[in-house]
Amino acid sequence: MDLKRQTELAKKGAFRIASITSDAKNRALVRIASALSENRVEIIAENKKDLEVAEKVGLSGAIVKRLKVDDRKIDEMVEGVKSVIGLDDPVGRTLMITELDDSLELQKITTPIGVIGVIFESRPDALVQISTLCIKSGNAVILKGGSEAINSNKILFDLIKTAVETDDRFKDTVQLVETRQDVTDLLKLDESIDLMIPRGSNALVRYIKGNTKIPVLGHADGVCHLYIDRDADIDMALSVSFDSKCQYAAVCNAMETLLVHRSIAGEFLPKMKGLFDEENVELSGDSEVCEIIKAGEATEDDWTTEYNDMTLSIKVVGSLEEAINHINRYGSHHTDAIVTRNETASKIFMDGVDSSSVMWNCSTRFADGYRYGLGSEVGISTSKIHSRGPVGLEGLVIYKYKVIGAGHIVADYSEGRSTFTHKRVK
Amino acid sequence: MDLKRQTELAKKGAFRIASITSDAKNRALVRIASALSENRVEIIAENKKDLEVAEKVGLSGAIVKRLKVDDRKIDEMVEGVKSVIGLDDPVGRTLMITELDDSLELQKITTPIGVIGVIFESRPDALVQISTLCIKSGNAVILKGGSEAINSNKILFDLIKTAVETDDRFKDTVQLVETRQDVTDLLKLDESIDLMIPRGSNALVRYIKGNTKIPVLGHADGVCHLYIDRDADIDMALSVSFDSKCQYAAVCNAMETLLVHRSIAGEFLPKMKGLFDEENVELSGDSEVCEIIKAGEATEDDWTTEYNDMTLSIKVVGSLEEAINHINRYGSHHTDAIVTRNETASKIFMDGVDSSSVMWNCSTRFADGYRYGLGSEVGISTSKIHSRGPVGLEGLVIYKYKVIGAGHIVADYSEGRSTFTHKRVK
Repeated sequence: MDLKRQTELAKKGAFRIASITSDAKNRALVRIASALSENRVEIIAENKKDLEVAEKVGLSGAIVKRLKVDDRKIDEMVEGVKSVIGLDDPVGRTLMITELDDSLELQKITTPIGVIGVIFESRPDALVQISTLCIKSGNAVILKGGSEAINSNKILFDLIKTAVETDDRFKDTVQLVETRQDVTDLLKLDESIDLMIPRGSNALVRYIKGNTKIPVLGHADGVCHLYIDRDADIDMALSVSFDSKCQYAAVCNAMETLLVHRSIAGEFLPKMKGLFDEENVELSGDSEVCEIIKAGEATEDDWTTEYNDMTLSIKVVGSLEEAINHINRYGSHHTDAIVTRNETASKIFMDGVDSSSVMWNCSTRFADGYRYGLGSEVGISTSKIHSRGPVGLEGLVIYKYKVIGAGHIVADYSEGRSTFTHKRVK
Repeated sequence: MDLKRQTELAKKGAFRIASITSDAKNRALVRIASALSENRVEIIAENKKDLEVAEKVGLSGAIVKRLKVDDRKIDEMVEGVKSVIGLDDPVGRTLMITELDDSLELQKITTPIGVIGVIFESRPDALVQISTLCIKSGNAVILKGGSEAINSNKILFDLIKTAVETDDRFKDTVQLVETRQDVTDLLKLDESIDLMIPRGSNALVRYIKGNTKIPVLGHADGVCHLYIDRDADIDMALSVSFDSKCQYAAVCNAMETLLVHRSIAGEFLPKMKGLFDEENVELSGDSEVCEIIKAGEATEDDWTTEYNDMTLSIKVVGSLEEAINHINRYGSHHTDAIVTRNETASKIFMDGVDSSSVMWNCSTRFADGYRYGLGSEVGISTSKIHSRGPVGLEGLVIYKYKVIGAGHIVADYSEGRSTFTHKRVK
């Protein structure tokens, strides 16, 4: 089946499930959870084929680790589906009601977006997570996985498709794009795909953002900063910077650049280095940093680099304003934090830094849908349209206006026979 | 000054006004209102130059009418600015507060989007309206007007710029792009312009949507439908269809296609034709329509055409589902209405039609920011991302997350020493 036909079918399916009950959606999700649990032997067998190919072609250990599905991973998938069942239905919520006039009412009601395109790499569990979020929010989904996970994706997709389509109305709402079809074809379908969600490497996200007119929910880079203000508590600054960098360095919300105020640098940096040396963090600093501690010389490139590793760039700044300007210029608008005892400085920082998450006296690592209590995470967006920061199910819905009258016509209002009351009811 | 430099300055300006007080913004708007009122002679003189050129090159009467600025138009502009002053500040609103743990709080706060690009045709008053909405919402704005209004735009821009920049912080936040620069250059600046708002013809909007990666707020087409159900009250159906088509035909929310259920067509269509003939509405129908009343033969193209004129296409349908399918296939997802006494049918219609506004027993002409009570209208969006339908000031804001801690680190949570409370405070 060709891609255009697949998306047309998905669009038709999307209309069918747009206003389906929460019950029907949850029953579909329950069937998915059972199917995954009951077919674990088959899933692991298919996954093994992918692992064998991966070994043969010599994929990196990190990729193989993400690719691997075992019993524990399947348990996690099942738990994930159950947690989606437990989330509130984001569709059909009344955002606003306004009485426009007697018996003329305006309602603003949440609806699914329509057709979501998802492009993901290696992790087969991403397929399960994102399809179930789309089902819960009444959207159709077009899935395009990486060729390294072709067998794992195929069986997970087949199980999900069979499970949901037990209810006829879900027909064609979950589609898998064969890997031989090019991702570039998918990116051209801006007429039928309403939102694209990439799950994978920075390079993947950057490629997608650069090559489609479809709105993209996600972030290419996570160049996160921690700024140690002149009024910082040194112990807190040490603890928060250590956590922001070292608690898990390979993720988007880890700190990549540390900014430190000149007046506190002499005291803070040597202590910090002592701590970071224990974890063998590689440090690059500007010339002022290098005068205080031993570090590599940072280049202009360092300020825009997401290392995703135990590497950190450090810069001394002369003021709060310089810190804010550096972050807005070199950062990726993901997550940036300040450590200070000065409340005014914290306010200026949080208002002035143009990022999806700004923080005061805590680790950048908190920027995450689960930690924010959003339920399940669709992704983290650095866009300034629609959704920003960690995005929960609400990122997969939009709204429509419903107007309910009793034969009302505009001529009565424009010719002065009637006037609007515009009374906010909700 | 080149365009790139202009947008860079606008971006810097946007940071400066992102968290400015409502008072400062309102004072800037008050200065604009005074400047417009006090310089009306000069504005009208500059506008006269444009009108003279328009006459010389033979622009259409409709364009000249939109272009003309007289005393009354200036009064309307001033009133418009005052109404924007009266609107609630959309920035700094707290959308959500969650306690993540003791002394660790998550806040979701509205912020400006950043830099808004506006491309508009002929109407100089659009320049005033959109810049003041951007100022009120703390955004910087890059304005690109049509060459036919070059002198009018220049003086209005100069007055606005001088008025706002009395307060230093507004420096460079309102920028005018010289008409000799090409609109295509503007559309390439997806790195620095966050949202594009076209105000003008369908052709303009379609061109912009097709030629930029910047998100576009607007709609190219308004192919709106009215469906007369089998259970419709005939008198109401006549009144609502007349208003939807004839009250003002040249606008996006006017009806372009009428769908009528087969079982009521024989009674409804002749009565409707009697009414519409008084206004000389040109009718095209499918073969069933042409058997009942005298009308031109509709072609496939008619179903997707926005006439913006006293022309209407009519189709007989056999069921509610056929009506919904026709609208979803041929419509523009703008505004569609049903007339029926059957509440179940109205629900199926309003849920099933995938449009930004869906209506029951009232005229499609109600789809409008003012009539919806949204205050001032930024535009009407048929997009399914960010804003949909008539968009008020809220379409010019997004949000950021602020996390406020007391030295909290993620390691404590991942290693089980602390647990999240996730208590919704607001």
